[in-house]
This record gives sequence, C-alpha cells and structure tokens, in this order.
Amino acid sequence: MNEDEAGSQYPLEPSAQEMRAMGEHALDVLVRFIEGLRASPAVDLDGADEVVRLLGQPPSEHGRPFPGLFDDVARGAAKAFNTTGPGYLAFIPGGGLYAAAVADFIACGFNRFVNVWHAAPGFAQIEWTVIRWLDDLFGLPPGSGGILTSGGSMANFSAIATARHARLGEDFLDGTLYFSAQTHASVSKAAILAGFPQRSLRAVPATPDLAIDVEALREMVQKDRADGLRPFFVVANAGTTNSGRVDPIADVADVAREEGLWLHADAAYGGFFQLTERGRTLFRGIEACDSITLDPHKGMFLPYGTGSLLVRDRAQLREAHHVGAAYLQDLFPESEIPNFADSSPELSRDFRGLRVWLPLQLHGVDAFRAALDEKLDLTQVLYDALRSTPGFDLRWPPDLTVVPFRYRPRSGNAEEFNRRLLERINASKRVFLSSTMIDDRFVLRVCIVSFRTHRDRVEEAIDIIRSSAAELDR
Amino acid sequence: MNEDEAGSQYPLEPSAQEMRAMGEHALDVLVRFIEGLRASPAVDLDGADEVVRLLGQPPSEHGRPFPGLFDDVARGAAKAFNTTGPGYLAFIPGGGLYAAAVADFIACGFNRFVNVWHAAPGFAQIEWTVIRWLDDLFGLPPGSGGILTSGGSMANFSAIATARHARLGEDFLDGTLYFSAQTHASVSKAAILAGFPQRSLRAVPATPDLAIDVEALREMVQKDRADGLRPFFVVANAGTTNSGRVDPIADVADVAREEGLWLHADAAYGGFFQLTERGRTLFRGIEACDSITLDPHKGMFLPYGTGSLLVRDRAQLREAHHVGAAYLQDLFPESEIPNFADSSPELSRDFRGLRVWLPLQLHGVDAFRAALDEKLDLTQVLYDALRSTPGFDLRWPPDLTVVPFRYRPRSGNAEEFNRRLLERINASKRVFLSSTMIDDRFVLRVCIVSFRTHRDRVEEAIDIIRSSAAELDR
Repeated sequence: MNEDEAGSQYPLEPSAQEMRAMGEHALDVLVRFIEGLRASPAVDLDGADEVVRLLGQPPSEHGRPFPGLFDDVARGAAKAFNTTGPGYLAFIPGGGLYAAAVADFIACGFNRFVNVWHAAPGFAQIEWTVIRWLDDLFGLPPGSGGILTSGGSMANFSAIATARHARLGEDFLDGTLYFSAQTHASVSKAAILAGFPQRSLRAVPATPDLAIDVEALREMVQKDRADGLRPFFVVANAGTTNSGRVDPIADVADVAREEGLWLHADAAYGGFFQLTERGRTLFRGIEACDSITLDPHKGMFLPYGTGSLLVRDRAQLREAHHVGAAYLQDLFPESEIPNFADSSPELSRDFRGLRVWLPLQLHGVDAFRAALDEKLDLTQVLYDALRSTPGFDLRWPPDLTVVPFRYRPRSGNAEEFNRRLLERINASKRVFLSSTMIDDRFVLRVCIVSFRTHRDRVEEAIDIIRSSAAELDR
Repeated sequence: MNEDEAGSQYPLEPSAQEMRAMGEHALDVLVRFIEGLRASPAVDLDGADEVVRLLGQPPSEHGRPFPGLFDDVARGAAKAFNTTGPGYLAFIPGGGLYAAAVADFIACGFNRFVNVWHAAPGFAQIEWTVIRWLDDLFGLPPGSGGILTSGGSMANFSAIATARHARLGEDFLDGTLYFSAQTHASVSKAAILAGFPQRSLRAVPATPDLAIDVEALREMVQKDRADGLRPFFVVANAGTTNSGRVDPIADVADVAREEGLWLHADAAYGGFFQLTERGRTLFRGIEACDSITLDPHKGMFLPYGTGSLLVRDRAQLREAHHVGAAYLQDLFPESEIPNFADSSPELSRDFRGLRVWLPLQLHGVDAFRAALDEKLDLTQVLYDALRSTPGFDLRWPPDLTVVPFRYRPRSGNAEEFNRRLLERINASKRVFLSSTMIDDRFVLRVCIVSFRTHRDRVEEAIDIIRSSAAELDR
C-alpha cells in the first residue's frame, strides 16, 4: 500500500480527488454568492421557516453527499440579514473579505496551534506581526502587546480582568467602573462576568451631543472614593455603536491620570478609522490608553469572530491570565513572540491571525485606508442629503459613519411614525437600517461600514428614505 | 456599468476570475499539504527562525501577489508541530477534517451573524441542531441547551459564571470550588477570571489511580461549610488531559446532590467517546450534570476553535449572560432557537456551527463513532505492547486514549533517563509525544486522538519507543 493512498479506506479522509471536487464546489457556491451580492436583497426572511426546518434535521448515521448539503447551506444563507451586501446599513455591518475566507480555509486545514509560540513559530509570529502593527498604529510604547479575540466582547472582558488584577487584587467587590450611558452593553456584560456586582457599574451622563460628560465623570469618581469605594476603570468610546460619537479621549485621559484610573478605549466599531487622517484627529489622546478594544471584523471588513485587545503593558495582561500546567512543561518559555494562551482566557482557539494578516499583506494598508475614507465621505453625503430634506431631524452630525435620524411627521404620533418609516425603508430590500433609543426616543440609524457599500447604494438609500417618509407623511 | 461588475474598481473586491484563481491556488496548497501528511515529519522546527523572520514583515502600503503569500504561509505551516498528521501523539491532538476547512471557507465568505437567531434563522438553527444533538447524546432533559465556544477554556468559564450566578449571587467571594489535582488548568483559570480568589479553589486529592477521591471531596465540602464558606461547584473529569482517567461521575454526582453542588463535567478531551459503548459505560452518571464542557476540536477531529458547553437548564445559562441594549431592539425575542449572544460572553463571533454540522451531516455519525472506537483499540494495542516490554513501567491502564509511561533504566538517574528518552523518540520525527508530571515524577505520555492515526503508525510508535529505550539503556 502506497503511504499517500493509505487514507482512502477511512471515510473521514477523502481522497485528493474527492477533496478537489468538494473544494471546487464550495468555490463555485461562494463566488456565485459574492457575484450576486449587488443584486440580492438587503434582507430576506420570507420562507425562513422552511430553511429552519431543512437545517434542523439531526445528522444521520451514514451521511449524505456534499452537493446537496452545500445547496441547503446556500439556501440558509439567502434567508437572512444580508450582512455582506452593499445595502446592509444596520447595526454595525460585518465584513467578509474574500481573501479572509480563503485564509480561513487554509488555516482550518493546516490546523496549527498558535496559542503557544513554540508549537508553530511562524504562525504565532503572524499573529504577533498583526498585534505589533496595531500597537504601532495607535502609538503604544515598547512593552505593549495584545491578543486576537473572538470579538469586542471578549476584548472588553480581558481588559476588565486585567485592570481588576492590576489595580484591585482578589478582593475587588468595592471597585467601581465608569462609562457613558452610550457605551456598548458588552462593557457591562464583561464587568458582570468578571465578577463585578451591578452596584459597581457607573453610567456617566452623556452631554447633549452624546459624548461622555467629563466633569460628571470626575465628580462621580471623587464621590465614590469619598464613600470608601475604589474607582479603577474608565471607558472612552472611540465611536459608540449607538451614534458613532467619539468621546473626548484626551479629556478622559486627563481624569484617568489624575484619579489613577485604568483608561480603556472601546474602539470596537471605530478604531480602524485611525488609519485615516480624520480618525487620527478625532482619536487624539488614544495613545495614552492602558487598553484598546478593536474589531477587525468591523473596520477591517473581516469575517465575524475577529476581535482584538491591545494593551500598553503586556506583562500586566499576562499576569492576569497566566496559569501553569504540568502537561505543558515541554513548551518553551516565551521568546520574542508571546505565548498568547498565557495572556488570554483561551488555551485552544482558532488561528485568527491569518484572516487578518493575509488580506492586509495581499491588499496593502492603503486599500483599507481608502475604503475607510470612502465610508467617511459617503456618510457625509447621506447626512447632508437628509439634513437638507424638509421633515428630517438630524441633530447629531456624524463623527464617523453612523447617522441617527428621525422624521417629524406633520401629524400623528412621531414615535409610531418613525417605527413605520423603518419598516417601510427595509421593505425595499435594497437597504437595511436598524434603530435605537436616544434620550428615550426611537431613532433610526444608518451605519456605513461595509466595504461593498459605494456611492450608488448610498444615493439609493437616500432616495428610499426620502420617498418612504414622503409616502407615509401624506 | 453592469451591476455585477461594479466592484472591480475596488481593490478589496477582486473579480470573479481573481477569486477563482486565488481559491484554486489555496485548494491546491491545501490538498498537497494533506496528501503529504503521512510522509511529513511529526515535528519540524529546524529553520523555524527563518520563517519567523519571513512572516514578521509588517504589511506594505500596496500589497503583494497571493501566490508568494500562500507559499510563505505553507513554509510557516511546515515548521511546526505537525498537529494534523498521523504521528502527532502529544498533548491532546487537534483535528483538522478537510470538510471542516471547506465549511469555514463558506462560513467566512457568507459571513452571516448567527448569535441572534433572527439575523440568520437557518444558520442559527444549524448551531441549535448541533447543540440539540449533543444534549441528546448526553441524555440531558428537555429545557437543556448550550453554546458553541472557542474551546474548553471558554466553556469552563461560562459554566462557572453560570453556577456563580445561579448559586451565589453577586457577593460570591465566600464560594468554594472543588476539582481533583488532575484537573485541567483551564478550570482554575476560568474560576480566577470569573472573580474567585485563589483561596476559593480546592484541589481534591486523587486516588492512586488518578481519579478524584470522592470521600476526600465530601469531607472537604463539609469542613468548608462548617467554616462558614459556601461550597457550590464540583468538577468531574470525563477524561483528564494528564492521564485520560475518568472520574467516577456517578459517585461525584451523589456528593453533588447530597451537598447541593453544581455538577460540572469537564469532558473537553474525552466527551465524544460517549458515541462509543465503552465511553458510555465509563461516563455512567454524566446525564446528571448541570453542565458539560466538550471540545469538538478534539473528539470530533475539527479545527481548533470549536468548543461547546452543554447545560441542563438553558434559562440559567441565559440569566447569567444576558444584558440588553437599545440598539438591538429590532431583533426578535427568542423563539425555538435561542439568541446565543444572550447565553454566552460573546456578542459577535465566528459561525462555528457550520464546521461541526457539515462534517457530521456529510460523513454521518457512524464515521465518528468508528474512528473513536479505532482510537480506543489502538491505545490498547500500544499499552499492551509497552507493558509487555521489559523495563517499561505502565501503572495506569488507559480508560480512554492517553497512556502515561516511564522507563526504569538499569542504572543512572531515572528522571534524567526519561527526559532523554522523550527527546530521542521525538528526534525520530515519525511520532511526537509529550510529557507531564504525575506524583511529582516525570512521565511520558502518548495520546491517540488524531483521525489520521492508524494501526501502522501506532506500531511504528511502539518500535520507536522500544528501540529508543533500548539504545539509551545499554
């Protein structure tokens, strides 16, 4: 028996021919899907029940052929929010760069273990190259570091766990955390999972323009300290999910320095605008942060599951996360490349680095910068157009690429009108927006982050929004 | 401008032709890699410095062509522990089923958001189908549920966070957790990240056969309670990483019931042997657990990054993890399919479900069962062969597929001899073993979990281990 053919008797080891056939079929499915994106609906849930039923069948004992399986999966993809399409302007659009999908195909097939560098030095270096590039982008000093996470939630979690360990020690229930009421819910969630009681979370008021009120922050910190509590952690948002507003980071940094707080930037949505001149101006002061959450699956247009946490002092990150084990004794200690497992909650995890590194190396940094600059321009176009249209209420000029808006109907309940307006816009299936609550009022929002969204679709969005409002406001 | 061609002016949107070329190249790289696995070294770090240097270059402004990039990546894969190859018998081998790599390629390209069901009902159902299948496999009752995680570490974390919330409330620093000294370090790490101080962790002694000492457990719990502490969490190992030993789960369950503890099974390594008759016998009592950690990237041979947590009561999982947010108000409430984001620490994350579901649907359950049964058989073959060889000390008969062993040299320091023995075996580059400490002594261990490890390679391993010992013991 030839060594290379020996696997064919085992069903889990398809022959080279079978692998090629399956790969070709998948390639065909995916390329056709991507080619069809500009024409496909921005959202389509009609008949979703049918695909749920189809995909709800338990696995059989003996399997079934791949072409039918792939077809079922493609049907499932069609009945969904079209997160990868140009009309997806809801929530924070995810990415889905083709090069990242190819990267994951290879990464999963090679299946190297990157979380201790010694097990795959080149691949661990790929992740470290990404982290170093990010640390440099944000002006973090030598000694800085970071980890790739599954997303912003886990990055915020590790930031809080690190700050807790560094600043409070094991008896931390009197520690208090500060963030504006506009902050992403993942911060509260991370704090609670890290063991903080609800009573330790401080929602700092926002100013009318939705940024953190720095004076209120200072007063709250001082009052808590006077009450015997231990203020230790403050969040500056580098672009909130709600409105895209950027907190005055340098001012928050002043308070953090004066009051001895760990300064964390939640830049999950907005961070990569640091690649642009406009972003760097808005984020002035971010280089003073102790930690920064970034989501490459947002601003770098990568697939969901690609987050990161940068830290000013990688020794602190490691001290908060490291636990030894006898069965890992064969692994070399840290070298130039860290053992990421020692600096994160995860031991085994996917090789996230390749899907950041490959698109970045392939397309070059400028391609990302240009795409982000384009998004900022498109946002201004949409904002100006709606603002100049009678009836539209745009009270928050965009810092980045989120535009919250309402419509003031000539009669009837405004709240109800705006809910119906959202439904009507989304019924177009050419664009898909979402909503939020700001100052206890229902607000529609447009968020332009997809790399596939260009001028034509934004103009179409403007037309659809205007005409939907006009039709409802007769 | 034709709609379908509009993307070509944007570098992040390659044409269909470019996508096909890149996909074909990746397919070729991966199929050649997999075809070469039986002949390639089990470990190869010679010249790793060179690939580290190569892959350490920061991204350029304008990118570079993909064929060179893929070649660099393939060079990085070669200089590593060959985690996907048949000779990898170290740590807990990872998987790397080809079908899973194809699944991730599609999943990343489609880039659907599965963590709230309404955004992609069919794909959320795919994950729920997997979870339901797992709950059924372990005999969990109606009302059970679970989540897919990045691995066992995060599954253990969510188990502890859930138990903490359900049993202790917000002021939990007097809670105490119990697990045998043979338990995986991720349990301690998870407890510490969830806020428990070191003083709350109880290492229960192991019996001479390395299982948890159930009587010692009971006494420790009772003493702690008498001291005013709140015992609340106990771990039963369904296969330890160190030795593969299975704790007497039914006996631990009795203590848990009598003492009111949350019963958690860490079945990250061993859980999928539940598919086999031998596994089900060993795991008797596991259906009583409140939570079970499983790693499909181990026992289902999937790529790293594919873990899961099963819970008896999915309402408790949700209560511990749920935080609301205004900008998610458009999402439908839970239906038959849960919003996984509400039951896990993560909001955005990768679509892990497809890389479990697709191989399972494609190959069928029986292919996995047969592969696991084969691993149990191969382990017995290796154990019997070494045990019958003079000089080898095999004091722990394998429950599952880990064989810890030592060699008793005729003269000299045994500890030193065994360290040299490991080096010599691994220098063969045909098999790769690791070591651990048991009872403060250095022990080699073989762990047979790769789906690509078959009888031929195990016989080769036996020959290499025997001849290496004989050569050293002249």
